[in-house]
Amino acid sequence: MTVSPEDVTSKLPSSPAADSRSRVSQFMRQIQDEICAGLEKLDGQSNFIEDSWKRPEGGGGRSRVIRDGGVFEQGGVNFSEVWGQQLPPSILKQRPEAAGHGFYATGTSMVLHPRNPYVPTVHLNYRYFEAGPVWWFGGGADLTPYYPFAEDAKHFHQTYKDICDRHHREYYPVFKQWCDEYFYLKHRQETRGIGGLFFDYQDGQGPLYKGPNSESPAALYSQKLPEIAPRSWEDLFSFINDCGQGFLPAYGPIVEQRHNTEYGDRERNFQLYRRGRYVEFNLVYDRGTIFGLQTNGRTESILMSLPPLVRWEYGYEPPADTPEAELYSTFLQPQDWVNWPTS
Amino acid sequence: MTVSPEDVTSKLPSSPAADSRSRVSQFMRQIQDEICAGLEKLDGQSNFIEDSWKRPEGGGGRSRVIRDGGVFEQGGVNFSEVWGQQLPPSILKQRPEAAGHGFYATGTSMVLHPRNPYVPTVHLNYRYFEAGPVWWFGGGADLTPYYPFAEDAKHFHQTYKDICDRHHREYYPVFKQWCDEYFYLKHRQETRGIGGLFFDYQDGQGPLYKGPNSESPAALYSQKLPEIAPRSWEDLFSFINDCGQGFLPAYGPIVEQRHNTEYGDRERNFQLYRRGRYVEFNLVYDRGTIFGLQTNGRTESILMSLPPLVRWEYGYEPPADTPEAELYSTFLQPQDWVNWPTS
Repeated sequence: MTVSPEDVTSKLPSSPAADSRSRVSQFMRQIQDEICAGLEKLDGQSNFIEDSWKRPEGGGGRSRVIRDGGVFEQGGVNFSEVWGQQLPPSILKQRPEAAGHGFYATGTSMVLHPRNPYVPTVHLNYRYFEAGPVWWFGGGADLTPYYPFAEDAKHFHQTYKDICDRHHREYYPVFKQWCDEYFYLKHRQETRGIGGLFFDYQDGQGPLYKGPNSESPAALYSQKLPEIAPRSWEDLFSFINDCGQGFLPAYGPIVEQRHNTEYGDRERNFQLYRRGRYVEFNLVYDRGTIFGLQTNGRTESILMSLPPLVRWEYGYEPPADTPEAELYSTFLQPQDWVNWPTS
Repeated sequence: MTVSPEDVTSKLPSSPAADSRSRVSQFMRQIQDEICAGLEKLDGQSNFIEDSWKRPEGGGGRSRVIRDGGVFEQGGVNFSEVWGQQLPPSILKQRPEAAGHGFYATGTSMVLHPRNPYVPTVHLNYRYFEAGPVWWFGGGADLTPYYPFAEDAKHFHQTYKDICDRHHREYYPVFKQWCDEYFYLKHRQETRGIGGLFFDYQDGQGPLYKGPNSESPAALYSQKLPEIAPRSWEDLFSFINDCGQGFLPAYGPIVEQRHNTEYGDRERNFQLYRRGRYVEFNLVYDRGTIFGLQTNGRTESILMSLPPLVRWEYGYEPPADTPEAELYSTFLQPQDWVNWPTS
């Protein structure tokens, strides 16, 4: 069974463009290209290597990996475009209207693990779905520093807030908090990092946020969210475009600022230890990862997000009055970074 | 609410001893002591350090860690004894008779990560539950080599088969296959290692095996299992005792045989890479780990099973005609190790 855009569009809450699929997948390829080019320039030494792959059930992708670079110890940027007869149960639970319909999904996702512990790890993902009467966009970008620099957190958040504010004044506060809530390690009582933006199920209908995603203490779902006027498919696609374009301005200056900072075994060991939290989050909580592994996804592409080298240590606690302790006390809890006082 | 042994015993399928809880928890402490003493002797350099802890909701434990030893890069042996008002939903699904009753649980678990890549990683766990009208034993031990030595696999399996055979001729074939099935990484299409024994819900009533636990290719659950005559609480406790005593004879000789084998970067890198599978299994599939993390267990004790240093590498495949390739082709698939021909 295949679903043509024509079958779908007449029933959508707000119709997508007739060529919605090709426009979005073209965009997803384009941000993969632009981001890879920008990262190679930042790295200065290494280049991405590409694997193209086909999915037997329909679709495929291109996985790109950079390794042993001047900045990036390991990183991956994936593009994929897949289709099939039925969305998996985990998504249908959130989108029951899609049951019994074919689906189309395309997206780009990225995780970068820099070698220098002063350069934060970063994650980005944008995705788009169509299935029967529904379509939606999801995604975001979030930063995971190992050492605490408030000005980096502020710059990252301010860049995305500026983008959000050009589209809707409610986007930043809601998507920022959603990110704090989603990237939360309950068993550690820590956020994964300093957050950024995260959103899902954006179909142009209000409210922006449609229920809890984790058991984090961020009380987004108990808030009374403002009613949002419906937004068109074009409005949302334009927002996603700007978010995608925002990545290099959000992350690049932080890399340039930090990647020549000298470090020793102490900082490297702390980085390797903290990378363990990235593994714990991705394997225990991340819906995309777990879903992919359990449904015959391309394992190597899914697990490209895992760090190249990781350490676990029983009972580690950061010594008092150190940068490591400041990371825990301040940077692994949700903060209002755009209004953070910096000297 | 508390449940006294008296409330429970009259309704059990086969009554446990009146002092069942103290006898089992005493045994669990004793194997922790004996195994730690045996491992320190094998290690020759380092000793276990103990953390005692209390659980606010009832009970506690003692976590013991060995680090930077002559043999063991990192390892932990945990004892715990906990009680509470209600078992978690994941267990109640398997044991609905326990719903609405208080529970008691005690167990010992262990994971050892040797430094030398020729020495296998090993895991052991024994546990005992009482809840309302039901009680059961579970546990087992399994071996995860990095380099392929059929005689090691054969020795490990033969030791446990001999113990099983002293108790019931159906134990070894069923518990060996259950282990292959449980410690299976579906997304890698690999077993975690060469297996050993695994069993759960042993309450003295047949059949030995009560349904699928994973989606491994081991077709245990489609077999017609023999009907087993009921076994008493004492029968099962005696079996668990012998299994616990069997660990040092099963693992010790392998350590002694391998830990002086010379190795270089190639073997070390392969070991670190393969340790990633241990992390993937424990965080994605292991019911005990996931349950513990999601229900406010003691995180540091639960994650003591994770290796001290781990590597991930995109797209790794072992070169043809190498020991690494033999590990994949033969040792990461279920095999009849006790009947394996060795020279």
